Amino acid sequence: MGKLRFEISMSLDGYVAGPNQSLDDPLGKGGEELHEWIFPLAAWRREHGQEGGEITASSPLLEQRVANLGAYIMGRNMFGGGPGGWGDGSWEGWWGDDPPYHVPVFVLTHHPREPLPMAGGTTFHFVTDGIESALARAREAAGERDVLLAGGADVANQYLRANLLDELQINLTPVLLGSGERLFDGLAGASPKLEQTRVVEGVGVTHLFYRRQDG
Amino acid sequence: MGKLRFEISMSLDGYVAGPNQSLDDPLGKGGEELHEWIFPLAAWRREHGQEGGEITASSPLLEQRVANLGAYIMGRNMFGGGPGGWGDGSWEGWWGDDPPYHVPVFVLTHHPREPLPMAGGTTFHFVTDGIESALARAREAAGERDVLLAGGADVANQYLRANLLDELQINLTPVLLGSGERLFDGLAGASPKLEQTRVVEGVGVTHLFYRRQDG
Repeated sequence: MGKLRFEISMSLDGYVAGPNQSLDDPLGKGGEELHEWIFPLAAWRREHGQEGGEITASSPLLEQRVANLGAYIMGRNMFGGGPGGWGDGSWEGWWGDDPPYHVPVFVLTHHPREPLPMAGGTTFHFVTDGIESALARAREAAGERDVLLAGGADVANQYLRANLLDELQINLTPVLLGSGERLFDGLAGASPKLEQTRVVEGVGVTHLFYRRQDG
Repeated sequence: MGKLRFEISMSLDGYVAGPNQSLDDPLGKGGEELHEWIFPLAAWRREHGQEGGEITASSPLLEQRVANLGAYIMGRNMFGGGPGGWGDGSWEGWWGDDPPYHVPVFVLTHHPREPLPMAGGTTFHFVTDGIESALARAREAAGERDVLLAGGADVANQYLRANLLDELQINLTPVLLGSGERLFDGLAGASPKLEQTRVVEGVGVTHLFYRRQDG
Protein backbone atom coordinates (compact mmCIF):
# COMPACT_ATOMS: atom_id res chain seq x y z
CA MET A 1 0.00 0.00 0.00
CA GLY A 2 1.23 3.50 -0.79
CA LYS A 3 1.97 6.12 1.83
CA LEU A 4 0.07 9.27 2.79
CA ARG A 5 2.57 12.11 2.36
CA PHE A 6 2.42 15.81 3.10
CA GLU A 7 4.84 18.55 2.10
CA ILE A 8 4.66 22.21 3.04
CA SER A 9 6.84 25.31 3.34
CA MET A 10 6.93 26.73 6.84
CA SER A 11 8.34 29.79 8.58
CA LEU A 12 10.84 29.29 11.39
CA ASP A 13 8.09 30.37 13.80
CA GLY A 14 5.72 27.68 12.54
CA TYR A 15 3.41 29.45 10.09
CA VAL A 16 2.45 28.09 6.69
CA ALA A 17 0.51 31.20 5.64
CA GLY A 18 0.50 34.80 6.77
CA PRO A 19 -2.38 36.62 8.48
CA ASN A 20 -5.38 38.04 6.63
CA GLN A 21 -5.70 35.33 3.99
CA SER A 22 -8.24 36.15 1.30
CA LEU A 23 -9.20 35.12 -2.21
CA ASP A 24 -6.91 37.85 -3.54
CA ASP A 25 -4.12 36.96 -1.15
CA PRO A 26 -4.41 33.21 -0.46
CA LEU A 27 -1.02 33.01 1.25
CA GLY A 28 -1.78 35.92 3.60
CA LYS A 29 0.43 38.86 4.43
CA GLY A 30 4.08 37.86 4.00
CA GLY A 31 3.12 34.29 3.08
CA GLU A 32 4.81 34.44 -0.30
CA GLU A 33 8.18 34.74 1.48
CA LEU A 34 7.78 31.09 2.52
CA HIS A 35 8.05 30.06 -1.12
CA GLU A 36 10.86 32.34 -2.27
CA TRP A 37 13.38 29.50 -2.12
CA ILE A 38 11.58 27.73 -4.97
CA PHE A 39 11.24 30.54 -7.53
CA PRO A 40 14.90 30.65 -8.66
CA LEU A 41 15.06 26.88 -9.26
CA ALA A 42 15.32 25.69 -12.85
CA ALA A 43 12.95 22.79 -12.08
CA TRP A 44 10.28 25.22 -10.85
CA ARG A 45 10.80 27.62 -13.74
CA ARG A 46 10.52 24.78 -16.26
CA GLU A 47 7.22 23.65 -14.68
CA HIS A 48 5.97 27.20 -15.15
CA GLY A 49 7.14 27.61 -18.73
CA GLN A 50 10.22 29.69 -17.96
CA GLU A 51 13.80 29.10 -19.01
CA GLY A 52 17.02 29.19 -17.01
CA GLY A 53 17.26 29.08 -13.27
CA GLU A 54 19.43 27.41 -10.67
CA ILE A 55 20.16 23.83 -9.72
CA THR A 56 20.61 23.32 -5.99
CA ALA A 57 20.21 20.54 -3.44
CA SER A 58 16.48 21.34 -3.55
CA SER A 59 16.17 20.51 -7.26
CA PRO A 60 15.90 16.72 -7.11
CA LEU A 61 13.32 17.05 -4.32
CA LEU A 62 10.95 18.84 -6.68
CA GLU A 63 11.02 15.87 -9.01
CA GLN A 64 10.75 13.29 -6.23
CA ARG A 65 7.72 15.13 -4.90
CA VAL A 66 5.45 13.95 -7.69
CA ALA A 67 7.14 10.60 -8.30
CA ASN A 68 5.05 7.53 -7.54
CA LEU A 69 1.91 9.57 -6.87
CA GLY A 70 -1.48 7.97 -7.47
CA ALA A 71 -3.93 10.42 -5.88
CA TYR A 72 -4.24 13.71 -4.01
CA ILE A 73 -6.38 14.84 -1.08
CA MET A 74 -7.13 18.52 -0.56
CA GLY A 75 -9.34 20.67 1.63
CA ARG A 76 -12.29 22.60 0.23
CA ASN A 77 -10.52 25.96 0.60
CA MET A 78 -7.72 24.75 -1.60
CA PHE A 79 -10.16 23.70 -4.32
CA GLY A 80 -11.90 27.05 -3.89
CA GLY A 81 -15.25 28.29 -5.10
CA GLY A 82 -16.07 30.09 -1.87
CA PRO A 83 -17.63 28.61 1.28
CA GLY A 84 -21.01 26.84 1.28
CA GLY A 85 -22.74 24.94 -1.53
CA TRP A 86 -21.62 24.63 -5.16
CA GLY A 87 -24.17 27.07 -6.65
CA ASP A 88 -24.53 26.47 -10.38
CA GLY A 89 -21.55 24.10 -10.39
CA SER A 90 -19.50 26.28 -12.71
CA TRP A 91 -16.51 26.47 -10.33
CA GLU A 92 -13.95 23.92 -11.49
CA GLY A 93 -10.96 24.88 -9.34
CA TRP A 94 -8.18 27.43 -9.83
CA TRP A 95 -6.21 25.49 -12.40
CA GLY A 96 -8.09 25.81 -15.68
CA ASP A 97 -9.06 22.93 -17.99
CA ASP A 98 -5.91 20.88 -17.45
CA PRO A 99 -5.08 20.88 -13.72
CA PRO A 100 -1.52 19.97 -12.71
CA TYR A 101 -2.55 16.75 -10.89
CA HIS A 102 -3.16 14.17 -13.66
CA VAL A 103 -4.58 11.67 -11.15
CA PRO A 104 -7.75 11.55 -9.01
CA VAL A 105 -8.05 14.37 -6.46
CA PHE A 106 -10.29 13.92 -3.42
CA VAL A 107 -11.70 17.20 -2.13
CA LEU A 108 -12.92 17.28 1.49
CA THR A 109 -16.18 19.23 1.68
CA HIS A 110 -19.49 19.33 3.51
CA HIS A 111 -21.34 19.78 0.22
CA PRO A 112 -21.99 16.79 -2.07
CA ARG A 113 -21.16 17.11 -5.73
CA GLU A 114 -20.81 14.74 -8.67
CA PRO A 115 -17.25 13.83 -9.73
CA LEU A 116 -15.70 16.38 -12.05
CA PRO A 117 -13.49 14.91 -14.78
CA MET A 118 -10.99 17.34 -16.31
CA ALA A 119 -8.44 17.06 -19.08
CA GLY A 120 -5.07 15.41 -18.52
CA GLY A 121 -6.21 12.66 -16.16
CA THR A 122 -7.35 14.83 -13.25
CA THR A 123 -10.78 13.99 -11.81
CA PHE A 124 -12.04 15.85 -8.77
CA HIS A 125 -14.05 13.68 -6.36
CA PHE A 126 -15.98 15.37 -3.56
CA VAL A 127 -15.91 13.55 -0.22
CA THR A 128 -18.45 14.51 2.44
CA ASP A 129 -17.93 11.77 5.02
CA GLY A 130 -14.62 12.80 6.53
CA ILE A 131 -10.86 12.41 6.37
CA GLU A 132 -10.73 8.64 6.88
CA SER A 133 -13.15 8.06 4.05
CA ALA A 134 -11.20 10.41 1.78
CA LEU A 135 -8.00 8.52 2.61
CA ALA A 136 -9.60 5.12 1.96
CA ARG A 137 -10.90 6.26 -1.41
CA ALA A 138 -7.62 7.95 -2.35
CA ARG A 139 -5.65 4.84 -1.37
CA GLU A 140 -7.93 2.67 -3.45
CA ALA A 141 -7.50 4.98 -6.45
CA ALA A 142 -3.72 5.14 -5.95
CA GLY A 143 -3.17 1.39 -5.68
CA GLU A 144 0.50 0.79 -4.88
CA ARG A 145 1.33 4.44 -5.37
CA ASP A 146 1.36 7.21 -2.74
CA VAL A 147 -1.31 9.72 -1.81
CA LEU A 148 -0.18 13.35 -1.46
CA LEU A 149 -2.02 15.66 0.86
CA ALA A 150 -2.09 18.92 -1.07
CA GLY A 151 -3.22 21.09 1.86
CA GLY A 152 -4.15 23.27 3.48
CA ALA A 153 -2.79 23.35 6.99
CA ASP A 154 -6.16 22.70 8.61
CA VAL A 155 -6.62 19.44 6.73
CA ALA A 156 -3.02 18.44 7.46
CA ASN A 157 -3.60 19.09 11.16
CA GLN A 158 -6.68 16.86 11.06
CA TYR A 159 -4.64 14.01 9.54
CA LEU A 160 -1.84 14.62 12.05
CA ARG A 161 -4.26 14.51 15.00
CA ALA A 162 -5.65 11.23 13.68
CA ASN A 163 -2.07 9.94 13.26
CA LEU A 164 -2.75 9.05 9.62
CA LEU A 165 0.23 10.83 8.01
CA ASP A 166 2.98 8.43 7.02
CA GLU A 167 5.56 10.95 5.82
CA LEU A 168 6.03 14.65 6.31
CA GLN A 169 8.36 17.01 4.46
CA ILE A 170 8.82 20.49 5.92
CA ASN A 171 10.59 23.10 3.83
CA LEU A 172 11.76 25.27 6.71
CA THR A 173 12.58 28.84 5.76
CA PRO A 174 14.43 31.45 7.85
CA VAL A 175 11.37 33.71 7.68
CA LEU A 176 9.70 34.91 10.89
CA LEU A 177 6.08 35.82 10.11
CA GLY A 178 4.93 36.67 13.64
CA SER A 179 1.34 35.65 12.93
CA GLY A 180 -0.76 33.67 10.47
CA GLU A 181 -1.90 30.10 10.06
CA ARG A 182 0.04 27.48 12.01
CA LEU A 183 0.87 23.96 11.07
CA PHE A 184 0.79 21.65 14.15
CA ASP A 185 -2.08 23.60 15.72
CA GLY A 186 -4.46 21.84 18.08
CA LEU A 187 -2.29 18.77 18.60
CA ALA A 188 -2.35 18.93 22.41
CA GLY A 189 -3.04 15.44 23.70
CA ALA A 190 -2.92 13.93 20.20
CA SER A 191 0.63 14.44 19.04
CA PRO A 192 1.92 11.72 16.75
CA LYS A 193 5.46 10.40 17.24
CA LEU A 194 7.74 11.31 14.37
CA GLU A 195 11.18 10.13 13.38
CA GLN A 196 13.64 12.32 11.47
CA THR A 197 14.71 10.44 8.36
CA ARG A 198 16.57 12.94 6.19
CA VAL A 199 17.76 16.54 6.06
CA VAL A 200 18.67 18.48 2.91
CA GLU A 201 20.23 21.93 3.16
CA GLY A 202 19.03 24.16 0.35
CA VAL A 203 19.64 27.84 -0.34
CA GLY A 204 17.46 29.80 2.09
CA VAL A 205 15.59 26.65 3.06
CA THR A 206 16.11 23.38 4.91
CA HIS A 207 14.15 20.34 3.81
CA LEU A 208 13.29 18.20 6.83
CA PHE A 209 11.90 14.69 6.32
CA TYR A 210 9.98 12.80 8.98
CA ARG A 211 8.02 9.58 9.10
CA ARG A 212 5.50 8.30 11.57
CA GLN A 213 7.03 6.26 14.34
CA ASP A 214 4.68 3.38 14.96
CA GLY A 215 4.17 1.69 18.30
CA MET B 1 33.09 43.32 19.07
CA GLY B 2 31.80 39.88 19.93
CA LYS B 3 28.39 38.59 18.90
CA LEU B 4 25.25 37.97 20.93
CA ARG B 5 24.39 34.31 20.38
CA PHE B 6 21.50 32.13 21.46
CA GLU B 7 21.13 28.37 21.25
CA ILE B 8 18.11 26.30 22.22
CA SER B 9 16.49 22.92 21.59
CA MET B 10 13.01 23.19 20.10
CA SER B 11 10.17 20.85 19.20
CA LEU B 12 9.01 20.67 15.59
CA ASP B 13 5.89 22.54 16.68
CA GLY B 14 7.91 25.41 18.15
CA TYR B 15 8.04 24.72 21.88
CA VAL B 16 11.17 25.00 23.99
CA ALA B 17 9.55 23.69 27.16
CA GLY B 18 6.45 21.65 27.88
CA PRO B 19 3.35 22.82 29.74
CA ASN B 20 3.09 23.03 33.54
CA GLN B 21 6.66 24.12 34.23
CA SER B 22 7.50 24.12 37.93
CA LEU B 23 10.52 24.15 40.23
CA ASP B 24 10.37 20.35 40.29
CA ASP B 25 9.84 20.10 36.55
CA PRO B 26 11.60 23.10 35.01
CA LEU B 27 11.29 21.75 31.45
CA GLY B 28 7.55 21.13 31.79
CA LYS B 29 5.63 18.02 30.77
CA GLY B 30 7.47 16.27 27.93
CA GLY B 31 10.15 18.97 27.81
CA GLU B 32 12.98 16.56 28.53
CA GLU B 33 12.30 14.92 25.14
CA LEU B 34 13.71 18.05 23.50
CA HIS B 35 17.11 17.24 24.94
CA GLU B 36 17.24 13.49 24.37
CA TRP B 37 19.50 13.91 21.35
CA ILE B 38 22.28 15.19 23.62
CA PHE B 39 22.33 12.54 26.36
CA PRO B 40 24.00 9.74 24.32
CA LEU B 41 26.84 12.01 23.14
CA ALA B 42 30.31 11.32 24.51
CA ALA B 43 30.97 15.08 24.76
CA TRP B 44 27.89 15.52 26.94
CA ARG B 45 28.65 12.48 29.07
CA ARG B 46 32.24 13.67 29.63
CA GLU B 47 30.96 17.09 30.79
CA HIS B 48 28.80 15.25 33.29
CA GLY B 49 31.48 12.91 34.59
CA GLN B 50 30.36 9.84 32.64
CA GLU B 51 32.39 7.60 30.34
CA GLY B 52 31.62 6.29 26.85
CA GLY B 53 28.97 7.61 24.54
CA GLU B 54 28.63 8.38 20.88
CA ILE B 55 30.35 10.74 18.47
CA THR B 56 28.00 12.21 15.87
CA ALA B 57 27.77 15.31 13.71
CA SER B 58 26.43 17.06 16.83
CA SER B 59 29.61 16.42 18.82
CA PRO B 60 31.82 19.26 17.53
CA LEU B 61 28.92 21.68 18.02
CA LEU B 62 28.94 21.06 21.75
CA GLU B 63 32.54 22.17 21.90
CA GLN B 64 32.03 25.15 19.58
CA ARG B 65 29.14 26.30 21.76
CA VAL B 66 31.40 27.48 24.57
CA ALA B 67 34.37 28.49 22.43
CA ASN B 68 35.20 32.21 22.39
CA LEU B 69 32.65 33.03 25.11
CA GLY B 70 33.26 36.03 27.34
CA ALA B 71 29.96 36.49 29.19
CA TYR B 72 26.43 35.11 29.59
CA ILE B 73 23.05 36.76 29.96
CA MET B 74 20.17 34.91 31.59
CA GLY B 75 16.65 35.60 32.81
CA ARG B 76 15.77 35.62 36.49
CA ASN B 77 13.84 32.34 36.24
CA MET B 78 16.91 30.61 34.93
CA PHE B 79 18.98 31.85 37.88
CA GLY B 80 16.13 30.81 40.18
CA GLY B 81 15.44 31.61 43.80
CA GLY B 82 11.72 32.07 43.24
CA PRO B 83 9.93 35.23 42.10
CA GLY B 84 10.20 38.57 43.93
CA GLY B 85 13.05 39.93 46.08
CA TRP B 86 16.18 38.08 47.17
CA GLY B 87 15.15 37.44 50.80
CA ASP B 88 18.20 36.68 52.94
CA GLY B 89 20.42 36.46 49.86
CA SER B 90 21.27 32.83 50.47
CA TRP B 91 20.14 31.70 46.98
CA GLU B 92 23.23 31.44 44.79
CA GLY B 93 21.76 29.69 41.72
CA TRP B 94 21.21 26.02 40.90
CA TRP B 95 24.82 25.16 40.14
CA GLY B 96 26.61 24.91 43.51
CA ASP B 97 29.88 26.62 44.45
CA ASP B 98 31.52 26.27 41.04
CA PRO B 99 28.95 27.13 38.34
CA PRO B 100 29.67 25.90 34.79
CA TYR B 101 30.07 29.42 33.33
CA HIS B 102 33.58 30.54 34.37
CA VAL B 103 32.93 34.08 33.09
CA PRO B 104 30.64 36.95 34.19
CA VAL B 105 26.91 36.14 34.03
CA PHE B 106 24.39 38.98 33.81
CA VAL B 107 21.03 38.10 35.36
CA LEU B 108 18.01 40.14 34.27
CA THR B 109 15.86 40.93 37.29
CA HIS B 110 13.60 43.60 38.76
CA HIS B 111 15.30 43.23 42.14
CA PRO B 112 18.71 44.83 42.79
CA ARG B 113 21.43 42.72 44.35
CA GLU B 114 25.18 43.05 44.84
CA PRO B 115 27.41 41.05 42.47
CA LEU B 116 27.91 37.47 43.60
CA PRO B 117 31.40 36.10 42.91
CA MET B 118 31.63 32.30 42.84
CA ALA B 119 34.49 29.85 42.39
CA GLY B 120 35.94 29.09 38.94
CA GLY B 121 35.63 32.56 37.46
CA THR B 122 31.83 32.87 37.49
CA THR B 123 30.44 36.14 38.90
CA PHE B 124 26.70 36.76 38.81
CA HIS B 125 25.80 40.39 38.15
CA PHE B 126 22.18 41.50 38.64
CA VAL B 127 20.86 43.95 36.05
CA THR B 128 17.67 45.85 36.79
CA ASP B 129 17.60 48.36 33.93
CA GLY B 130 16.64 46.12 31.01
CA ILE B 131 17.95 43.99 28.18
CA GLU B 132 19.97 46.68 26.40
CA SER B 133 21.83 47.55 29.56
CA ALA B 134 22.51 43.88 30.25
CA LEU B 135 23.86 43.47 26.72
CA ALA B 136 26.07 46.56 27.00
CA ARG B 137 27.53 45.34 30.28
CA ALA B 138 27.98 41.77 29.01
CA ARG B 139 29.68 43.03 25.85
CA GLU B 140 32.03 45.19 27.88
CA ALA B 141 32.90 42.22 30.11
CA ALA B 142 33.36 39.92 27.10
CA GLY B 143 35.64 42.27 25.14
CA GLU B 144 36.32 40.65 21.76
CA ARG B 145 34.60 37.44 22.75
CA ASP B 146 30.93 36.52 22.31
CA VAL B 147 28.02 36.82 24.71
CA LEU B 148 25.77 33.76 25.02
CA LEU B 149 22.15 34.18 25.96
CA ALA B 150 21.55 31.27 28.31
CA GLY B 151 17.74 31.57 28.32
CA GLY B 152 14.94 31.24 28.89
CA ALA B 153 12.64 31.67 25.94
CA ASP B 154 11.01 34.81 27.28
CA VAL B 155 14.33 36.65 27.47
CA ALA B 156 15.29 35.35 24.02
CA ASN B 157 12.01 36.63 22.61
CA GLN B 158 12.73 40.06 24.13
CA TYR B 159 16.12 40.18 22.40
CA LEU B 160 14.57 38.93 19.13
CA ARG B 161 11.86 41.62 19.24
CA ALA B 162 14.53 44.25 19.80
CA ASN B 163 16.54 42.72 16.91
CA LEU B 164 19.63 42.42 19.12
CA LEU B 165 20.44 38.75 18.49
CA ASP B 166 23.35 38.30 16.10
CA GLU B 167 23.30 34.51 15.80
CA LEU B 168 20.74 31.84 16.57
CA GLN B 169 21.20 28.07 16.76
CA ILE B 170 18.07 25.95 16.88
CA ASN B 171 18.42 22.27 17.72
CA LEU B 172 15.21 21.12 16.05
CA THR B 173 13.88 17.79 17.29
CA PRO B 174 11.16 15.63 15.70
CA VAL B 175 9.12 15.94 18.91
CA LEU B 176 5.59 17.35 18.80
CA LEU B 177 4.72 18.69 22.26
CA GLY B 178 1.29 20.14 21.44
CA SER B 179 1.56 22.82 24.14
CA GLY B 180 4.10 24.58 26.33
CA GLU B 181 6.38 27.59 26.09
CA ARG B 182 7.02 28.91 22.58
CA LEU B 183 10.13 30.47 21.17
CA PHE B 184 9.27 33.23 18.67
CA ASP B 185 6.19 34.27 20.64
CA GLY B 186 4.96 37.83 20.41
CA LEU B 187 7.04 38.79 17.38
CA ALA B 188 4.09 40.12 15.34
CA GLY B 189 5.14 43.42 13.83
CA ALA B 190 8.68 43.11 15.16
CA SER B 191 10.12 40.10 13.36
CA PRO B 192 13.83 40.32 12.66
CA LYS B 193 15.16 39.17 9.29
CA LEU B 194 17.29 36.06 9.54
CA GLU B 195 19.60 34.34 7.11
CA GLN B 196 20.24 30.59 7.17
CA THR B 197 23.98 30.06 7.42
CA ARG B 198 24.49 26.38 8.18
CA VAL B 199 22.62 23.11 8.72
CA VAL B 200 23.99 20.04 10.53
CA GLU B 201 22.03 16.79 10.52
CA GLY B 202 22.42 14.97 13.81
CA VAL B 203 20.78 11.81 15.10
CA GLY B 204 17.23 12.72 16.09
CA VAL B 205 18.00 16.42 15.76
CA THR B 206 18.80 19.02 13.12
CA HIS B 207 21.05 21.93 14.04
CA LEU B 208 19.93 25.07 12.21
CA PHE B 209 22.15 28.16 12.23
CA TYR B 210 20.89 31.64 11.45
CA ARG B 211 22.32 35.11 11.64
CA ARG B 212 20.68 38.49 11.64
CA GLN B 213 20.30 39.96 8.20
CA ASP B 214 21.07 43.64 8.49
CA GLY B 215 19.55 46.37 6.39
